[in-house]
Amino acid sequence: MCPDLNPIEHLWGILKRECRDRIRTELDTVVDFWLKHSHDTVHGGFFTCIGRDGTVYDELKYVWLQGRQVWMYCRLYRTMDRFQRPEILEAAKAGGAFLRRFSRVSSSTSQWKCAFCLTRDGKAVKIQRTIFSECFYIMAMDELSRVTGDKDMQVEAEQMMEQLTHWVQVDSSGLGRPKLPGDIPTNSMAVPMMLLCLVHQLTQDRGQEVVQKYRELGRWCVQQILQHIQRDGTAILENVSLNGAELRGCQGRLQNPGHALEAGWFLLQYSAEQGDDELKTTAINKFVELPYQCGWDKEHGGLFYFLDVDGHCPTQLEWSMKLWWPHCEALIAFLMAYSQTKKPELLDRFFHIYEYTFSNFPDAKSGEWFGYLTQDGKVALDFKGGPFKAGTSLPQMLLLLEEEEGLGACLQWQSVNTMKLWTGPGHGSLWTRDGA
Amino acid sequence: MCPDLNPIEHLWGILKRECRDRIRTELDTVVDFWLKHSHDTVHGGFFTCIGRDGTVYDELKYVWLQGRQVWMYCRLYRTMDRFQRPEILEAAKAGGAFLRRFSRVSSSTSQWKCAFCLTRDGKAVKIQRTIFSECFYIMAMDELSRVTGDKDMQVEAEQMMEQLTHWVQVDSSGLGRPKLPGDIPTNSMAVPMMLLCLVHQLTQDRGQEVVQKYRELGRWCVQQILQHIQRDGTAILENVSLNGAELRGCQGRLQNPGHALEAGWFLLQYSAEQGDDELKTTAINKFVELPYQCGWDKEHGGLFYFLDVDGHCPTQLEWSMKLWWPHCEALIAFLMAYSQTKKPELLDRFFHIYEYTFSNFPDAKSGEWFGYLTQDGKVALDFKGGPFKAGTSLPQMLLLLEEEEGLGACLQWQSVNTMKLWTGPGHGSLWTRDGA
Repeated sequence: MCPDLNPIEHLWGILKRECRDRIRTELDTVVDFWLKHSHDTVHGGFFTCIGRDGTVYDELKYVWLQGRQVWMYCRLYRTMDRFQRPEILEAAKAGGAFLRRFSRVSSSTSQWKCAFCLTRDGKAVKIQRTIFSECFYIMAMDELSRVTGDKDMQVEAEQMMEQLTHWVQVDSSGLGRPKLPGDIPTNSMAVPMMLLCLVHQLTQDRGQEVVQKYRELGRWCVQQILQHIQRDGTAILENVSLNGAELRGCQGRLQNPGHALEAGWFLLQYSAEQGDDELKTTAINKFVELPYQCGWDKEHGGLFYFLDVDGHCPTQLEWSMKLWWPHCEALIAFLMAYSQTKKPELLDRFFHIYEYTFSNFPDAKSGEWFGYLTQDGKVALDFKGGPFKAGTSLPQMLLLLEEEEGLGACLQWQSVNTMKLWTGPGHGSLWTRDGA
Repeated sequence: MCPDLNPIEHLWGILKRECRDRIRTELDTVVDFWLKHSHDTVHGGFFTCIGRDGTVYDELKYVWLQGRQVWMYCRLYRTMDRFQRPEILEAAKAGGAFLRRFSRVSSSTSQWKCAFCLTRDGKAVKIQRTIFSECFYIMAMDELSRVTGDKDMQVEAEQMMEQLTHWVQVDSSGLGRPKLPGDIPTNSMAVPMMLLCLVHQLTQDRGQEVVQKYRELGRWCVQQILQHIQRDGTAILENVSLNGAELRGCQGRLQNPGHALEAGWFLLQYSAEQGDDELKTTAINKFVELPYQCGWDKEHGGLFYFLDVDGHCPTQLEWSMKLWWPHCEALIAFLMAYSQTKKPELLDRFFHIYEYTFSNFPDAKSGEWFGYLTQDGKVALDFKGGPFKAGTSLPQMLLLLEEEEGLGACLQWQSVNTMKLWTGPGHGSLWTRDGA
């Protein structure tokens, strides 16, 4: 024991290092998992359906995840010294080449529609009538252009962004959805949230011309996101009408705490860039605190996947499951909120979520994390990658936590509650999970 | 106690009556629930999203369920004396009128496509690119024509059937799915299974002309269903190629025990009509016994929703949940199999499934059944009706069990195993459930 510290301070010092070390080690392990198991050296691109131990159980390639993995590798390479490894850059470039070659499918209305899913050798299997494959294509191209210096990729990202904005703001018919009289146009959280994320991606550290180009779109996204504050400011609803009114029925009452928290940290990023303190406060109170308050399972811990604001049972069969990604978004959101405000209660929440997340999701046996737990925390699906999970949300969260300047600072702060949490009976389970 | 019976026989007599009475009472309760809570007296048609206590929590009208509820009311009215009540006939007719007026949507390729979901006042909200809304429209029209004597409805059902057969056997482009190079044409169990069910519906007790018209289609459906026997006869797979080969990946390895059991009793119905004993044996061994063997959860009881034949974790988040409908199909399949063979082991299975089903799904507090349980049998979603559940599979099962001539006969048979089951410690829970 260091003679200058009392026992509590000494223990806190250990925990602080342990937390930092854990995040760093976890990021290394997770990145290694995907480097080792997901690369298709024959056809290019990444396998996304990877079993618990790394086995590829399906060769289909999901475009969201191709795009996000390219982004992830580039971001790691670009921003963290220890990931500036040639194999990571090469994998990102190969993934980008696969995406450019195969994921764009021509359609009658546009040349910019991307497939949702491809065969191993790049044949389109399915096209979604949404914008998300395209969003992740843009993320990949822009980030790739930053590490390679390839201007064509930046141009391509911006061209696809133009198409996307047209679909969202002007005319969605290019997405292929039939216009039906009962299908009311809706402002779904995912859409302005993703567009705001893209505005951040495309403009970050670019010149004033690019920043200017997307300024209005950024403002529009924020205004669209804020429309989701409903019920006199007491709830974030996932779907609202185009003029920001509550919609009827299940669709209108749906809450998706993970999405709200994700929107929260996108807004925090934006408000920091703009120096908009009012928006920062709204983001924290409404998009960080509220979804945690309403979405946290008081009985079993963890964030619910879906809820109904009036307490009806959601119709999504998986509503009560605990998914890895809302917990990733929550950790980012609370650490960012703390970092911008230094309010201790936000750090308390961070550690509360941290304990649940790092106790329940990591797979101590084979590395990486389980993605899907039952309401009471048992592993429900034991694969590491599937149609909607791969090496993306998790390493992104770990990277952002490690990068977040607040992390170092926050760990200086000593909360009595946090100490209780960290030294309580749950501590033994904090670092390992043997899995199902 | 009757002086002529020994105590075991006396007990058996009580249980026998109790089982029959239970099924009958349950059917009355379930029908009353839907008569009381689901009718929209303003716009016609049925509410399908009904909460635990009967509250309508969403006014959307799902077309599958509109069609199936019309069918159900007609079938009850037509075949069971105690349901020949004017209110049931009137409700069926009103539901049929709503369907005819609103569910058919014109499209560029066909006038016969039906919506999947309508607003309360009948505006189309969503169209699926599958055949199932149309299937249930046909079921409704044909059964309605039988109780009303309205020939137009029969003609309409047959015309839509012609369209459906064209989509399935000749050209699916009218369904609106884009042709994609990686999207391999697939024989999905649901399609030939539903068509075989429709062939039975359209031909039952009709003249030779109608029977003749659908003879070839019936044979084709059977042949398509038998293609799903894979892995040297050890597994039923949900999706196979058009020439009956196993498909790659998750899609190819998917098992859906409830669907296999449903196909099983459709095949048993068909083999009985045709006097085809070989098909009967195949139906029982492969489509009734096998899905039960592979699909039954040895740890918690109940049938899994999805499985992977190689033991990988399915990618469907709800794979391990216990849904009401596979249990309904299993009860019908085993009782029908027993009725056609009198093999005691089939009756044992029936009672095994019966005990799990009637112990776990019924809601003793508000009537009707819960539809969705967790793997270990807790109520996961507590509504009585939702986008895929209404007054359909459950009353259909209860009606078929009550009607099934085997039920009376089977209950004469005294299995030592069954007696153990019925008098064991689980018996107390057999009749009630307080719910979540």
